[in-house]
Amino acid sequence: MKAVRLHAYSEPPRLDEVPEPTATGPHDVVVRVGGAGLCRTDLHIRDGWFAPAVPTDLPLVLGHETTGWVYEVGTAVENVAVGDAVICHPQSSCGTCPACRTGDDMRCARGLDFTGLTRAGGFAELMRTTDRAVLPLPAGMEPAAVAPHADAGLTVMHAVRKAVPLLGPGTRVVVVGVGGLGHIAVQCLRAMTAAEVIAVDPDPESLGLATDCGAHHAVPADGRHGDRVAELTGGAGAEAVLDFVGEGDAVASSLAMVRSRGTYFVVGYGGELRVPTFNLVLPEISVVGNAVGTHDDLRELVALAAAGGVDIRTRTYPLEAFADAFADLEGGRVHGRAVLVP
Amino acid sequence: MKAVRLHAYSEPPRLDEVPEPTATGPHDVVVRVGGAGLCRTDLHIRDGWFAPAVPTDLPLVLGHETTGWVYEVGTAVENVAVGDAVICHPQSSCGTCPACRTGDDMRCARGLDFTGLTRAGGFAELMRTTDRAVLPLPAGMEPAAVAPHADAGLTVMHAVRKAVPLLGPGTRVVVVGVGGLGHIAVQCLRAMTAAEVIAVDPDPESLGLATDCGAHHAVPADGRHGDRVAELTGGAGAEAVLDFVGEGDAVASSLAMVRSRGTYFVVGYGGELRVPTFNLVLPEISVVGNAVGTHDDLRELVALAAAGGVDIRTRTYPLEAFADAFADLEGGRVHGRAVLVP
Amino acid sequence: MKAVRLHAYSEPPRLDEVPEPTATGPHDVVVRVGGAGLCRTDLHIRDGWFAPAVPTDLPLVLGHETTGWVYEVGTAVENVAVGDAVICHPQSSCGTCPACRTGDDMRCARGLDFTGLTRAGGFAELMRTTDRAVLPLPAGMEPAAVAPHADAGLTVMHAVRKAVPLLGPGTRVVVVGVGGLGHIAVQCLRAMTAAEVIAVDPDPESLGLATDCGAHHAVPADGRHGDRVAELTGGAGAEAVLDFVGEGDAVASSLAMVRSRGTYFVVGYGGELRVPTFNLVLPEISVVGNAVGTHDDLRELVALAAAGGVDIRTRTYPLEAFADAFADLEGGRVHGRAVLVP
Amino acid sequence: MKAVRLHAYSEPPRLDEVPEPTATGPHDVVVRVGGAGLCRTDLHIRDGWFAPAVPTDLPLVLGHETTGWVYEVGTAVENVAVGDAVICHPQSSCGTCPACRTGDDMRCARGLDFTGLTRAGGFAELMRTTDRAVLPLPAGMEPAAVAPHADAGLTVMHAVRKAVPLLGPGTRVVVVGVGGLGHIAVQCLRAMTAAEVIAVDPDPESLGLATDCGAHHAVPADGRHGDRVAELTGGAGAEAVLDFVGEGDAVASSLAMVRSRGTYFVVGYGGELRVPTFNLVLPEISVVGNAVGTHDDLRELVALAAAGGVDIRTRTYPLEAFADAFADLEGGRVHGRAVLVP
Repeated sequence: MKAVRLHAYSEPPRLDEVPEPTATGPHDVVVRVGGAGLCRTDLHIRDGWFAPAVPTDLPLVLGHETTGWVYEVGTAVENVAVGDAVICHPQSSCGTCPACRTGDDMRCARGLDFTGLTRAGGFAELMRTTDRAVLPLPAGMEPAAVAPHADAGLTVMHAVRKAVPLLGPGTRVVVVGVGGLGHIAVQCLRAMTAAEVIAVDPDPESLGLATDCGAHHAVPADGRHGDRVAELTGGAGAEAVLDFVGEGDAVASSLAMVRSRGTYFVVGYGGELRVPTFNLVLPEISVVGNAVGTHDDLRELVALAAAGGVDIRTRTYPLEAFADAFADLEGGRVHGRAVLVP
Repeated sequence: MKAVRLHAYSEPPRLDEVPEPTATGPHDVVVRVGGAGLCRTDLHIRDGWFAPAVPTDLPLVLGHETTGWVYEVGTAVENVAVGDAVICHPQSSCGTCPACRTGDDMRCARGLDFTGLTRAGGFAELMRTTDRAVLPLPAGMEPAAVAPHADAGLTVMHAVRKAVPLLGPGTRVVVVGVGGLGHIAVQCLRAMTAAEVIAVDPDPESLGLATDCGAHHAVPADGRHGDRVAELTGGAGAEAVLDFVGEGDAVASSLAMVRSRGTYFVVGYGGELRVPTFNLVLPEISVVGNAVGTHDDLRELVALAAAGGVDIRTRTYPLEAFADAFADLEGGRVHGRAVLVP
Repeated sequence: MKAVRLHAYSEPPRLDEVPEPTATGPHDVVVRVGGAGLCRTDLHIRDGWFAPAVPTDLPLVLGHETTGWVYEVGTAVENVAVGDAVICHPQSSCGTCPACRTGDDMRCARGLDFTGLTRAGGFAELMRTTDRAVLPLPAGMEPAAVAPHADAGLTVMHAVRKAVPLLGPGTRVVVVGVGGLGHIAVQCLRAMTAAEVIAVDPDPESLGLATDCGAHHAVPADGRHGDRVAELTGGAGAEAVLDFVGEGDAVASSLAMVRSRGTYFVVGYGGELRVPTFNLVLPEISVVGNAVGTHDDLRELVALAAAGGVDIRTRTYPLEAFADAFADLEGGRVHGRAVLVP
Repeated sequence: MKAVRLHAYSEPPRLDEVPEPTATGPHDVVVRVGGAGLCRTDLHIRDGWFAPAVPTDLPLVLGHETTGWVYEVGTAVENVAVGDAVICHPQSSCGTCPACRTGDDMRCARGLDFTGLTRAGGFAELMRTTDRAVLPLPAGMEPAAVAPHADAGLTVMHAVRKAVPLLGPGTRVVVVGVGGLGHIAVQCLRAMTAAEVIAVDPDPESLGLATDCGAHHAVPADGRHGDRVAELTGGAGAEAVLDFVGEGDAVASSLAMVRSRGTYFVVGYGGELRVPTFNLVLPEISVVGNAVGTHDDLRELVALAAAGGVDIRTRTYPLEAFADAFADLEGGRVHGRAVLVP
């Protein structure tokens, strides 16, 4: 079958012909890929960012946002059957360690077992995963249209669920960066809270997308956005800031938009947080790191999507055109999310 | 001035001419009444329901849902000034007891100090309350139009805030009774959660109101509504049931609509809850009593109303026509809330 | 092997010779029983209490509080190995349904799959369960000594964890019934909270046990205990009441000991809760049903036991003497917990 | 009367003769000082640390940890009477702003109104404060002995209450710095949680104090303490780290002791937090800033002290010997807390 594989860090991946995976383990599930989202993390993986923390053998099939149809199942699989439309949580968790027992799949004692990072991912015609990683899609939900929910949406839902208790009526939340994650965040926040949503992005087209997604305010990230957010929040700052950039100036400027007793949710990464402890202590600011969500977050997200509460803006590319998708993502030409379709 | 006073339990109140109240205490605030909502609790007070638990001297000016404009202030009042439009929390709390220090105004160590129940209420041209009980209304919000928020809305917001953590995407909530409180509840639940809202009421006009307010399903309370809710929840029951009736068959039928691990929020009262402990233990059902909310609940409610998230259906009556309002409420002819305007 | 089986409801169980279970399924675990606690629920099962709600084929090996050593494992078992000392959660959950994914094992979509109730239990030399139901014991912890933690302790920990957020310094908690569960509850509450613990029981020996376990006050349940608890709580009642009786007068008297805004945790069952909705609404009382805990509750309990925070008072009987144990339990002669040892 | 006043930043305060304060406002309370704790923050105030953020007129009577007896009350004071023993929350809050209404006294809309920082403090014979700032002490509690609870203990309780939900049985918490705050923290954690408490400090005498206070492990801060904590936590790190130093190497080394999904509570200040966003995101670390607690935190702390759950190690100095106390604190010769007694 065809698969897009990384052969060396900092080099472009290549389209290869590789053997088809099969359900060798009792809990294995092989999925015929319907769509596979392309994520900024794929660029970081390609560039070797994760290599020190998460060593992996190359070549590696990339892709961690996968949907499709069950193609083959292992002997002990009970929760899905061949032909079922499914979305794949990227992590294959063990189910019996303390973290798994409380639903914290990403902290599985087995460690990261993550498609497209430590095992073959979804930029291929077939992908092998496990029964614990798949979630059936409701009838009528097209796999390719929701592939980015497997990671972009999942990460958003994970952070938004943490933010919901802070976001009663009369509060404000800032979404920094209206890309693949941010435009989902605006919608989740509108559907799940009564907070006023302020979107910040340097790109006018992204700000238009934010408004389409329901943001109450769209603020250009032009260096004066801190003042604009201060003005929109009566000088106090926002109860919560969700930062999907996490690098460059965004870190300091996001933190500065948080009000006293508020929370800075860091989702994007790449930069550095640097702050005097006094500035955290006196106003009692919290900083909360957020990674990929749990299987239960994925279930809630799919339920919200099924109820019409969140739509993803996608642009599809044939699997063979993966290089165009990478180039468009790096060039800032993807508004929403790029999805590869085999 | 004119005031509607109760002279004897189980007798109709009367329109009297009484002396104007003045700001005698340092924290007193006298409000020129703009509107005063009529509540089923007023009927209960008239009928002597509260007399054993909350003894009060008669005659008593009724009315605990009051809005208006500040008319006079005591010497130590700092948070409002003459002329400010305000909504009045019914309880005058002390501010220094342990309950007040955590915002639990209704549990003030001083006990119930409640307009229209233990002190003169809002069915009058002027009402005396205290600085801790008033909340300024935002510009453009008409006092008479929001008077029922002072108790009906406040009680709803209090219960809904407790329910929000249970109501993520994919969950269902049942609102039992779509009257003065229920129609606000439907709106708060839509604005503050992504849950599917099911409204239950015997009256077709009330069900129409529920649908106008955003309920996803309107189910006639015809004895088969339990089956219908079971069907709408895949046989499992709802994560939360908010019961604004609390008497008659509503109690048992509301409890029966709660799913395993779900919560029955009792708001209405008058009936009896009767259940084998086994039926609470095995499915781990919670039953949560709900009374009037806190000042902070009122602040959130006003913020939500200001943001367009909740509208009250009101029908106004001149103060002099109070008897018509009482009769219409008892006759089930008020859809939404009756408001007396001096 | 030998096993104590129920052949007909309301008749005494019998000691039978039965075939040994084997690990036929990939996730099966066969445990050589070290100890099996005897619980009041065993009496309820014998008497047919559960038969309508949980139909089961007879004969049935009783016993749902089992510890021992792994004897045989199925082909897919990874979390334990032959020879490991383990404690067995009574429920065999699926691991992939929504409830299991958030750790709510008892709400597994597969339904109750409970040793000694719907499948053969621990009153035997060997018991078959599954990998998800077993938890390794720390080195030095004797299986027979901790068997009751598998259900009595687990149920307590489940309820206590819910109560902890209510029990800051200066609060009071009442433990009603100081038997197998109650004496564990007193210890968990002392170890996990700074609340003042008041134990209530009609039996002087049980009250002595409560004091040994760390209760601050031991109050005889003599009909005037409500007054005594009122006195100990400054007239207000307790923030939380944990009722391990749940039948007879205990229900009403437990509810009456709850303060305004407090919570009545119902753990025991058999009786009826009967209360005017007004009495829940005005003081905002919550009633919370509690069943068997989760696997994570069991993990925390074992950790607490390993740290010396909770000890179980047990009295052991040879498996063959099971009838004596049943008789002693019914006769109120067991202070702490009876454990059958094969 | 005598008072210790700061006349210029970075210069030693001086003992002055000043006029006695009187209860001029209706809510004023004048307290005859029983004891006033000396805090590292007093050094920071002396050195001008707060001057940019919190401008204040000099000379200023220092001291924000005050206990004593009510000496005079304003006309509207109802919660205390002359002669009552009281502890003084340092902040005088308004009681009617949104923050005050939810008990968040330190976020009062009026801004910081803090004894010894923006208004005359407790290093004097008398101190004027307000009714909302005083809390009666239980009978038998000696004011001088508990003065440090007014800020040191209060700050600890505030942070510990946030940490309690993270600290179930089987968890570990690290207390970094066993000085005036740290030795209270060890005790609160022991009384309110079942977590294993690990104390870290460079000073052997402080480590001895930690052990006396109930710490399970006392680890010398010698540069290898990170390894030692890793070892004590099975390589994973601690669920919570409470850092009472907040400067120098303590910041980075505290953060490094937090496990995946754990929380770093920053209480001390003076240094800088510097961390790649990636290191917060991947393991989902939270960083929580903590300032002075609420009035309700103070109430809980006094309740815990009354129940014997927390003792303060104090060393008293006559008010006139204030300079010795300052010198001993700066020289690291105070184990526990210095208290000035007029």
